[in-house]
Amino acid sequence: MNTPRSGCPINLTLETLGDRWSLIVIRDLMFGNRRHFRELLTQSEEGIASNILADRLARLEAAGLVSRRDDPSHKQKVIYSLTEASIDLVPLLAQIGGWGLRHTQPSKELSVRAKILEDGGPKLWSAFMVELRHLHLGMPAPQESVFAKLRAAYEAAIADRQD
Amino acid sequence: MNTPRSGCPINLTLETLGDRWSLIVIRDLMFGNRRHFRELLTQSEEGIASNILADRLARLEAAGLVSRRDDPSHKQKVIYSLTEASIDLVPLLAQIGGWGLRHTQPSKELSVRAKILEDGGPKLWSAFMVELRHLHLGMPAPQESVFAKLRAAYEAAIADRQD
Repeated sequence: MNTPRSGCPINLTLETLGDRWSLIVIRDLMFGNRRHFRELLTQSEEGIASNILADRLARLEAAGLVSRRDDPSHKQKVIYSLTEASIDLVPLLAQIGGWGLRHTQPSKELSVRAKILEDGGPKLWSAFMVELRHLHLGMPAPQESVFAKLRAAYEAAIADRQD
Repeated sequence: MNTPRSGCPINLTLETLGDRWSLIVIRDLMFGNRRHFRELLTQSEEGIASNILADRLARLEAAGLVSRRDDPSHKQKVIYSLTEASIDLVPLLAQIGGWGLRHTQPSKELSVRAKILEDGGPKLWSAFMVELRHLHLGMPAPQESVFAKLRAAYEAAIADRQD
Protein backbone atom coordinates (compact mmCIF):
# COMPACT_ATOMS: atom_id res chain seq x y z
CA MET A 1 0.00 0.00 0.00
CA ASN A 2 1.29 3.46 -0.83
CA THR A 3 0.63 6.40 1.46
CA PRO A 4 -2.97 5.87 2.60
CA ARG A 5 -5.54 8.43 1.55
CA SER A 6 -6.86 8.80 5.10
CA GLY A 7 -6.49 7.32 8.58
CA CYS A 8 -10.09 6.05 8.64
CA PRO A 9 -10.12 2.34 9.60
CA ILE A 10 -12.75 1.56 6.94
CA ASN A 11 -10.64 3.25 4.26
CA LEU A 12 -7.44 1.55 5.49
CA THR A 13 -9.09 -1.88 5.36
CA LEU A 14 -10.34 -1.23 1.82
CA GLU A 15 -6.92 0.06 0.72
CA THR A 16 -5.20 -2.98 2.29
CA LEU A 17 -7.56 -5.50 0.71
CA GLY A 18 -7.30 -3.88 -2.70
CA ASP A 19 -9.83 -4.80 -5.35
CA ARG A 20 -12.41 -7.57 -5.34
CA TRP A 21 -10.04 -10.16 -6.86
CA SER A 22 -7.95 -10.06 -3.69
CA LEU A 23 -10.95 -11.06 -1.58
CA ILE A 24 -11.90 -13.74 -4.12
CA VAL A 25 -8.41 -15.25 -3.75
CA ILE A 26 -8.71 -15.14 0.05
CA ARG A 27 -12.16 -16.76 -0.22
CA ASP A 28 -10.70 -19.65 -2.26
CA LEU A 29 -7.78 -20.16 0.14
CA MET A 30 -10.19 -20.02 3.09
CA PHE A 31 -13.30 -21.96 2.02
CA GLY A 32 -11.84 -24.08 -0.80
CA ASN A 33 -8.51 -24.81 0.90
CA ARG A 34 -6.88 -24.24 -2.52
CA ARG A 35 -3.25 -23.80 -1.59
CA HIS A 36 -1.41 -24.11 -4.92
CA PHE A 37 -1.35 -21.62 -7.77
CA ARG A 38 -2.74 -24.15 -10.25
CA GLU A 39 -5.72 -25.05 -8.05
CA LEU A 40 -6.53 -21.38 -7.49
CA LEU A 41 -6.35 -20.83 -11.25
CA THR A 42 -8.10 -23.88 -12.71
CA GLN A 43 -10.82 -24.30 -10.07
CA SER A 44 -11.79 -20.62 -10.08
CA GLU A 45 -15.57 -20.22 -10.39
CA GLU A 46 -14.99 -16.71 -11.69
CA GLY A 47 -12.33 -17.68 -14.22
CA ILE A 48 -9.56 -15.52 -12.74
CA ALA A 49 -6.81 -14.78 -15.27
CA SER A 50 -3.33 -16.13 -14.59
CA ASN A 51 -1.66 -12.71 -14.51
CA ILE A 52 -4.31 -11.28 -12.16
CA LEU A 53 -3.94 -14.24 -9.79
CA ALA A 54 -0.14 -13.88 -9.73
CA ASP A 55 -0.40 -10.14 -9.12
CA ARG A 56 -2.98 -10.45 -6.32
CA LEU A 57 -1.04 -13.21 -4.55
CA ALA A 58 2.06 -11.00 -4.61
CA ARG A 59 0.10 -7.99 -3.31
CA LEU A 60 -1.52 -10.07 -0.57
CA GLU A 61 1.87 -11.40 0.45
CA ALA A 62 3.29 -7.86 0.58
CA ALA A 63 0.33 -6.79 2.73
CA GLY A 64 0.89 -9.69 5.15
CA LEU A 65 -2.37 -11.43 4.26
CA VAL A 66 -0.84 -14.46 2.52
CA SER A 67 2.43 -16.32 3.13
CA ARG A 68 4.22 -18.66 0.74
CA ARG A 69 6.67 -21.48 1.34
CA ASP A 70 7.93 -24.55 -0.49
CA ASP A 71 5.50 -27.42 -0.23
CA PRO A 72 7.30 -30.23 1.66
CA SER A 73 5.24 -32.87 -0.18
CA HIS A 74 5.81 -31.50 -3.72
CA LYS A 75 9.40 -30.42 -4.26
CA GLN A 76 8.75 -27.96 -7.05
CA LYS A 77 5.53 -26.48 -5.73
CA VAL A 78 4.84 -23.46 -3.58
CA ILE A 79 2.08 -23.64 -0.99
CA TYR A 80 0.14 -20.51 -0.06
CA SER A 81 -1.28 -19.98 3.44
CA LEU A 82 -3.52 -17.49 5.16
CA THR A 83 -2.03 -15.45 8.02
CA GLU A 84 -3.53 -14.42 11.35
CA ALA A 85 -4.63 -11.12 9.72
CA SER A 86 -6.47 -12.81 6.85
CA ILE A 87 -7.96 -15.53 9.08
CA ASP A 88 -9.43 -12.59 11.02
CA LEU A 89 -11.39 -11.72 7.85
CA VAL A 90 -13.79 -14.65 8.51
CA PRO A 91 -16.50 -12.41 10.12
CA LEU A 92 -16.19 -9.89 7.27
CA LEU A 93 -16.50 -12.59 4.58
CA ALA A 94 -19.45 -14.10 6.47
CA GLN A 95 -21.17 -10.68 6.37
CA ILE A 96 -20.35 -10.26 2.68
CA GLY A 97 -21.89 -13.68 1.99
CA GLY A 98 -24.90 -12.93 4.17
CA TRP A 99 -25.60 -9.66 2.35
CA GLY A 100 -25.31 -11.51 -0.97
CA LEU A 101 -27.88 -14.07 0.20
CA ARG A 102 -30.35 -11.29 1.03
CA HIS A 103 -29.78 -8.85 -1.83
CA THR A 104 -28.50 -10.76 -4.87
CA GLN A 105 -29.59 -13.94 -6.68
CA PRO A 106 -26.90 -16.49 -5.81
CA SER A 107 -26.96 -20.04 -7.14
CA LYS A 108 -28.37 -22.62 -4.73
CA GLU A 109 -25.25 -24.78 -4.51
CA LEU A 110 -22.92 -21.83 -3.89
CA SER A 111 -25.25 -20.48 -1.17
CA VAL A 112 -25.31 -23.36 1.27
CA ARG A 113 -21.98 -22.52 2.92
CA ALA A 114 -22.83 -18.82 3.23
CA LYS A 115 -26.14 -19.80 4.85
CA ILE A 116 -24.44 -22.07 7.41
CA LEU A 117 -21.92 -19.33 8.23
CA GLU A 118 -24.63 -16.70 8.61
CA ASP A 119 -26.84 -18.92 10.76
CA GLY A 120 -23.89 -20.02 12.92
CA GLY A 121 -22.93 -16.44 13.80
CA PRO A 122 -19.87 -15.38 15.81
CA LYS A 123 -19.60 -18.72 17.64
CA LEU A 124 -19.23 -20.70 14.40
CA TRP A 125 -16.90 -18.04 12.93
CA SER A 126 -14.58 -18.41 15.93
CA ALA A 127 -14.59 -22.21 15.61
CA PHE A 128 -13.79 -21.91 11.91
CA MET A 129 -10.93 -19.50 12.67
CA VAL A 130 -9.45 -22.03 15.14
CA GLU A 131 -9.55 -24.62 12.36
CA LEU A 132 -7.99 -22.26 9.81
CA ARG A 133 -5.15 -21.60 12.28
CA HIS A 134 -4.63 -25.37 12.29
CA LEU A 135 -4.72 -25.72 8.49
CA HIS A 136 -2.67 -22.61 7.68
CA LEU A 137 -0.52 -21.84 10.73
CA GLY A 138 0.16 -25.32 12.13
CA MET A 139 -1.74 -24.79 15.39
CA PRO A 140 -3.44 -27.78 17.11
CA ALA A 141 -6.47 -29.30 15.38
CA PRO A 142 -9.92 -28.57 16.80
CA GLN A 143 -12.13 -31.46 17.92
CA GLU A 144 -14.90 -30.69 15.46
CA SER A 145 -14.32 -29.59 11.90
CA VAL A 146 -16.37 -26.64 10.60
CA PHE A 147 -14.54 -27.02 7.31
CA ALA A 148 -15.84 -30.60 6.92
CA LYS A 149 -19.36 -29.40 7.72
CA LEU A 150 -19.18 -26.66 5.09
CA ARG A 151 -17.71 -29.01 2.51
CA ALA A 152 -20.30 -31.74 3.16
CA ALA A 153 -23.14 -29.22 2.72
CA TYR A 154 -21.60 -27.94 -0.51
CA GLU A 155 -21.09 -31.44 -1.90
CA ALA A 156 -24.65 -32.43 -0.96
CA ALA A 157 -25.96 -29.36 -2.83
CA ILE A 158 -23.87 -30.25 -5.90
CA ALA A 159 -25.11 -33.87 -5.80
CA ASP A 160 -28.68 -32.59 -5.40
CA ARG A 161 -28.30 -30.49 -8.54
CA GLN A 162 -27.05 -33.46 -10.53
CA ASP A 163 -29.93 -35.77 -9.52
CA MET B 1 -23.69 -5.12 -13.10
CA ASN B 2 -23.07 -7.08 -16.30
CA THR B 3 -23.44 -10.87 -16.37
CA PRO B 4 -21.96 -11.99 -13.05
CA ARG B 5 -18.85 -14.14 -13.13
CA SER B 6 -20.35 -16.70 -10.74
CA GLY B 7 -23.40 -17.30 -8.58
CA CYS B 8 -21.38 -17.25 -5.34
CA PRO B 9 -22.96 -14.82 -2.85
CA ILE B 10 -19.55 -13.42 -1.85
CA ASN B 11 -18.67 -12.78 -5.49
CA LEU B 12 -22.09 -11.25 -6.22
CA THR B 13 -21.79 -8.87 -3.27
CA LEU B 14 -18.32 -7.79 -4.40
CA GLU B 15 -19.51 -7.33 -8.00
CA THR B 16 -22.54 -5.31 -6.81
CA LEU B 17 -20.50 -3.06 -4.53
CA GLY B 18 -17.87 -2.46 -7.19
CA ASP B 19 -14.58 -0.92 -6.16
CA ARG B 20 -13.58 0.61 -2.85
CA TRP B 21 -14.76 4.11 -3.80
CA SER B 22 -18.34 2.85 -3.82
CA LEU B 23 -18.07 1.74 -0.20
CA ILE B 24 -16.36 5.02 0.72
CA VAL B 25 -19.35 6.93 -0.72
CA ILE B 26 -21.77 4.68 1.21
CA ARG B 27 -19.70 5.24 4.37
CA ASP B 28 -19.99 9.04 3.97
CA LEU B 29 -23.74 8.89 3.33
CA MET B 30 -24.14 6.55 6.33
CA PHE B 31 -21.82 7.87 9.04
CA GLY B 32 -21.38 11.47 7.86
CA ASN B 33 -24.99 12.00 6.73
CA ARG B 34 -23.54 13.83 3.70
CA ARG B 35 -26.50 13.91 1.36
CA HIS B 36 -25.50 16.43 -1.31
CA PHE B 37 -22.93 16.02 -4.05
CA ARG B 38 -20.92 19.04 -2.88
CA GLU B 39 -20.69 17.78 0.72
CA LEU B 40 -19.58 14.33 -0.45
CA LEU B 41 -16.95 15.99 -2.62
CA THR B 42 -15.54 18.76 -0.42
CA GLN B 43 -15.66 16.96 2.94
CA SER B 44 -14.06 13.78 1.61
CA GLU B 45 -11.20 12.66 3.87
CA GLU B 46 -9.79 10.70 0.95
CA GLY B 47 -10.05 13.54 -1.57
CA ILE B 48 -12.40 11.73 -3.96
CA ALA B 49 -12.29 13.22 -7.47
CA SER B 50 -15.44 14.82 -8.84
CA ASN B 51 -15.72 12.47 -11.83
CA ILE B 52 -15.22 9.37 -9.66
CA LEU B 53 -17.87 10.56 -7.21
CA ALA B 54 -20.37 11.21 -10.02
CA ASP B 55 -19.64 7.81 -11.58
CA ARG B 56 -19.95 5.86 -8.31
CA LEU B 57 -23.19 7.63 -7.34
CA ALA B 58 -24.65 6.70 -10.73
CA ARG B 59 -23.49 3.07 -10.39
CA LEU B 60 -24.83 2.82 -6.84
CA GLU B 61 -28.16 4.22 -8.00
CA ALA B 62 -28.28 1.68 -10.86
CA ALA B 63 -27.53 -1.11 -8.37
CA GLY B 64 -30.35 0.03 -6.05
CA LEU B 65 -27.99 1.08 -3.25
CA VAL B 66 -28.59 4.84 -3.49
CA SER B 67 -31.67 6.83 -4.45
CA ARG B 68 -31.82 10.47 -5.55
CA ARG B 69 -34.59 13.03 -5.42
CA ASP B 70 -34.96 16.78 -5.49
CA ASP B 71 -34.26 18.31 -2.11
CA PRO B 72 -37.49 20.02 -0.95
CA SER B 73 -35.49 22.59 1.04
CA HIS B 74 -33.07 23.56 -1.76
CA LYS B 75 -34.84 23.89 -5.09
CA GLN B 76 -31.82 23.28 -7.29
CA LYS B 77 -30.21 20.56 -5.24
CA VAL B 78 -30.46 16.80 -5.39
CA ILE B 79 -30.46 14.84 -2.16
CA TYR B 80 -29.00 11.31 -2.07
CA SER B 81 -30.35 8.63 0.26
CA LEU B 82 -29.41 5.13 1.27
CA THR B 83 -31.87 2.33 0.44
CA GLU B 84 -32.91 -0.69 2.49
CA ALA B 85 -30.21 -2.73 0.71
CA SER B 86 -27.40 -0.29 1.56
CA ILE B 87 -28.66 0.27 5.13
CA ASP B 88 -28.28 -3.50 5.44
CA LEU B 89 -24.52 -2.99 4.86
CA VAL B 90 -24.13 -1.63 8.43
CA PRO B 91 -22.87 -4.98 9.85
CA LEU B 92 -20.44 -5.37 6.95
CA LEU B 93 -19.06 -1.83 7.37
CA ALA B 94 -18.79 -2.40 11.12
CA GLN B 95 -16.69 -5.54 10.42
CA ILE B 96 -14.56 -3.65 7.89
CA GLY B 97 -13.91 -0.93 10.49
CA GLY B 98 -13.22 -3.50 13.21
CA TRP B 99 -10.66 -5.29 11.06
CA GLY B 100 -9.01 -1.93 10.32
CA LEU B 101 -8.76 -1.20 14.03
CA ARG B 102 -6.97 -4.50 14.65
CA HIS B 103 -4.72 -4.74 11.59
CA THR B 104 -3.96 -1.23 10.31
CA GLN B 105 -2.79 2.01 11.93
CA PRO B 106 -5.86 4.25 11.87
CA SER B 107 -5.82 7.80 13.22
CA LYS B 108 -7.22 8.18 16.72
CA GLU B 109 -10.00 10.59 15.84
CA LEU B 110 -11.23 8.51 12.90
CA SER B 111 -11.22 5.34 15.05
CA VAL B 112 -13.65 6.28 17.80
CA ARG B 113 -16.79 5.58 15.80
CA ALA B 114 -15.48 2.24 14.53
CA LYS B 115 -14.64 1.29 18.13
CA ILE B 116 -18.16 2.14 19.36
CA LEU B 117 -19.71 0.16 16.50
CA GLU B 118 -17.47 -2.84 17.14
CA ASP B 119 -18.07 -2.82 20.89
CA GLY B 120 -21.82 -2.35 20.45
CA GLY B 121 -22.16 -5.44 18.25
CA PRO B 122 -25.34 -6.60 16.47
CA LYS B 123 -27.66 -4.85 18.95
CA LEU B 124 -26.16 -1.41 18.27
CA TRP B 125 -26.01 -2.12 14.52
CA SER B 126 -29.75 -2.86 14.50
CA ALA B 127 -30.50 0.34 16.42
CA PHE B 128 -28.38 2.33 13.98
CA MET B 129 -30.20 0.73 11.04
CA VAL B 130 -33.56 1.79 12.53
CA GLU B 131 -32.23 5.34 12.71
CA LEU B 132 -30.88 5.24 9.14
CA ARG B 133 -34.34 4.12 7.96
CA HIS B 134 -35.67 7.26 9.65
CA LEU B 135 -33.05 9.58 8.13
CA HIS B 136 -33.07 8.06 4.63
CA LEU B 137 -36.41 6.33 4.15
CA GLY B 138 -38.74 8.52 6.23
CA MET B 139 -39.60 5.84 8.77
CA PRO B 140 -40.44 6.85 12.39
CA ALA B 141 -37.60 8.22 14.51
CA PRO B 142 -36.08 5.98 17.19
CA GLN B 143 -36.13 7.08 20.83
CA GLU B 144 -32.37 7.09 21.19
CA SER B 145 -29.98 8.32 18.51
CA VAL B 146 -26.96 6.13 17.73
CA PHE B 147 -25.98 8.71 15.12
CA ALA B 148 -25.77 11.44 17.80
CA LYS B 149 -23.67 9.14 19.98
CA LEU B 150 -21.24 8.42 17.13
CA ARG B 151 -21.03 12.09 16.16
CA ALA B 152 -20.46 13.24 19.76
CA ALA B 153 -17.62 10.73 20.18
CA TYR B 154 -16.05 11.87 16.90
CA GLU B 155 -16.32 15.56 17.79
CA ALA B 156 -14.85 14.92 21.24
CA ALA B 157 -11.89 13.14 19.61
CA ILE B 158 -11.38 16.07 17.22
CA ALA B 159 -11.53 18.58 20.09
CA ASP B 160 -9.09 16.41 22.05
CA ARG B 161 -6.62 16.52 19.19
CA GLN B 162 -6.83 20.31 18.98
CA ASP B 163 -6.16 20.84 22.68
